[in-house]
Amino acid sequence: MSLPSSYDPGVVAALSALDAAAVRHVFFVACGGSLSIMHPAKFLLDQHAPIPSDVYNAAEFTTRAPRTLNENSLVILCSMTGTTRETKAAADFARAKGARTIGLTVEPQSPLGQAVDHVVSFEAPYTTGVPINARNSNYARIYQLVMGLVALTGGEDLTAELMASLTALQPAIDRAQRHWARLFADYAPRLAKHDVIYTMASGASYGAAYSFAICVLMEMQWINSQAIHANEFFHGPFEVLDRDRAFILLKGLDSTRPLEDRADEFLHRFGSAANIMVLDAATLDLTGIDPRFQGNLAPLIFFDTLWRFAYKVADLRKHTMLEARRYMKKIAY
Amino acid sequence: MSLPSSYDPGVVAALSALDAAAVRHVFFVACGGSLSIMHPAKFLLDQHAPIPSDVYNAAEFTTRAPRTLNENSLVILCSMTGTTRETKAAADFARAKGARTIGLTVEPQSPLGQAVDHVVSFEAPYTTGVPINARNSNYARIYQLVMGLVALTGGEDLTAELMASLTALQPAIDRAQRHWARLFADYAPRLAKHDVIYTMASGASYGAAYSFAICVLMEMQWINSQAIHANEFFHGPFEVLDRDRAFILLKGLDSTRPLEDRADEFLHRFGSAANIMVLDAATLDLTGIDPRFQGNLAPLIFFDTLWRFAYKVADLRKHTMLEARRYMKKIAY
Repeated sequence: MSLPSSYDPGVVAALSALDAAAVRHVFFVACGGSLSIMHPAKFLLDQHAPIPSDVYNAAEFTTRAPRTLNENSLVILCSMTGTTRETKAAADFARAKGARTIGLTVEPQSPLGQAVDHVVSFEAPYTTGVPINARNSNYARIYQLVMGLVALTGGEDLTAELMASLTALQPAIDRAQRHWARLFADYAPRLAKHDVIYTMASGASYGAAYSFAICVLMEMQWINSQAIHANEFFHGPFEVLDRDRAFILLKGLDSTRPLEDRADEFLHRFGSAANIMVLDAATLDLTGIDPRFQGNLAPLIFFDTLWRFAYKVADLRKHTMLEARRYMKKIAY
Repeated sequence: MSLPSSYDPGVVAALSALDAAAVRHVFFVACGGSLSIMHPAKFLLDQHAPIPSDVYNAAEFTTRAPRTLNENSLVILCSMTGTTRETKAAADFARAKGARTIGLTVEPQSPLGQAVDHVVSFEAPYTTGVPINARNSNYARIYQLVMGLVALTGGEDLTAELMASLTALQPAIDRAQRHWARLFADYAPRLAKHDVIYTMASGASYGAAYSFAICVLMEMQWINSQAIHANEFFHGPFEVLDRDRAFILLKGLDSTRPLEDRADEFLHRFGSAANIMVLDAATLDLTGIDPRFQGNLAPLIFFDTLWRFAYKVADLRKHTMLEARRYMKKIAY
């Protein structure tokens, strides 16, 4: 098989150098926001190939030292700046075990870029302020890696469908921004006054809920949060729900959607709609995105549109987004 | 090889019926508190055998339908009462895919007990009020399953060392209760006044942090919480830390302890010791527990002793533990 000509050259180079048939295990390794994209990447792989995989925080990966890691492992790492020490150390550790490493980073010359066998670059929008096309994002690149691996190992070749879907993604995000503008305007003042805001999702969308909770609400707004898995909600966490409790529920389009539907029903039965913001991907115009990938791409739409919501909340709280960190990149730790 | 005569008969029966050499993948599947023991079970397997495994919430497992699930899979499920619908459905789903299923439950005649190929029973202390010996707990039984599987698949046979360690566990827990009695008396009034209490750990102890956050603080005390992974803490969540923020940090004895040490240092640098309770397993008398299993058994000690702490908090908040649920087992959902 050959990969579509629209595939990212870095992805093509990494996959072409790989003895795909020898890959017995994939490790998705990163920290924080970069770790959040590994959950949907594993979801995609779980759906399409009988290849075992793990998602690990980079420091957990290195200190745990799983016995499954060996020369038949493919380790995919990600760090936006490429300077995350734990992720660079994880790449060194994986290579020392004989594994093949692929590193996603905005900076190919970074420590991570130098440490891995193959670099896949991507574009990140929010730190640079420069708008990007979502087809050049870390999500888009790791999905190309996963579906390329699926095709190379004898699974269904959906790489052309993936690329067509990624091409249709940015227009879908732009439409979603307009579609949810009024929702965001309504809910920003409602949620901005809360000290605790939970996020919730399942399946492919869990990573987007996780990154919004830890990187935006906690890190940039100092709002207490947790990303609750939509079914785990019913096994403990739901007891914190009352009419005053704030939730952001992401309802995606993957096979786990019934879990999010059930959480939605419960939230509105015992909580107040005024404090519960639901982003339902089923209400979006996803023209051009193949139905087989709509569930996988919905979290990119959540992630991207929620940034605009976050800036509204930040304005109302008079708590700027990137500048208002106390510790991250301000002190040594 | 033969399993020690002290091994649980249910575990022996399940393992004896298994074609261990055919097992290519292990799925650890449950919900809520029962899911929390699956994380340390996977940690133990990762340490000792090159067998891939996944930890999934039961409803996520069923709706995700991973392609790795097939007749060479071993699916280990757990539900205390055996009535958790999602877990029973997951057992049915796994069997329909040809996988071998083992179900841990207090009630062998329960729906889960009836649905699986093999039942392993255990004793649960907190709902019955009857004190148990920790060697009969769900943790102890799943560890026997994992180390039995390791031995049966050609890994190092540490089953005798495990059983000796489990025999020494309850006395170690009893000593830990006395050791931490003053700490708990000090911190119960300090933490009882907080609306948000985070828990934190890594490696084998992460599950204990998760269950205390979702099943005790959220479910039984309606306190907002999240179990933060000790390294993920540095990639977003740490920005919520200030002198008023409450944390419970579990410092275990497994190979990930440096992650918890680093979190400890940071918490005390920027938080207030008055709001940060640290349970450090290195301060305990673990006589009789093999050093190779001390990291794996530390979370049982955390889990068990923290229940006593939780009752102190509940008394101070005048919020009873099991009776004060709004939704769980009180309404249909």
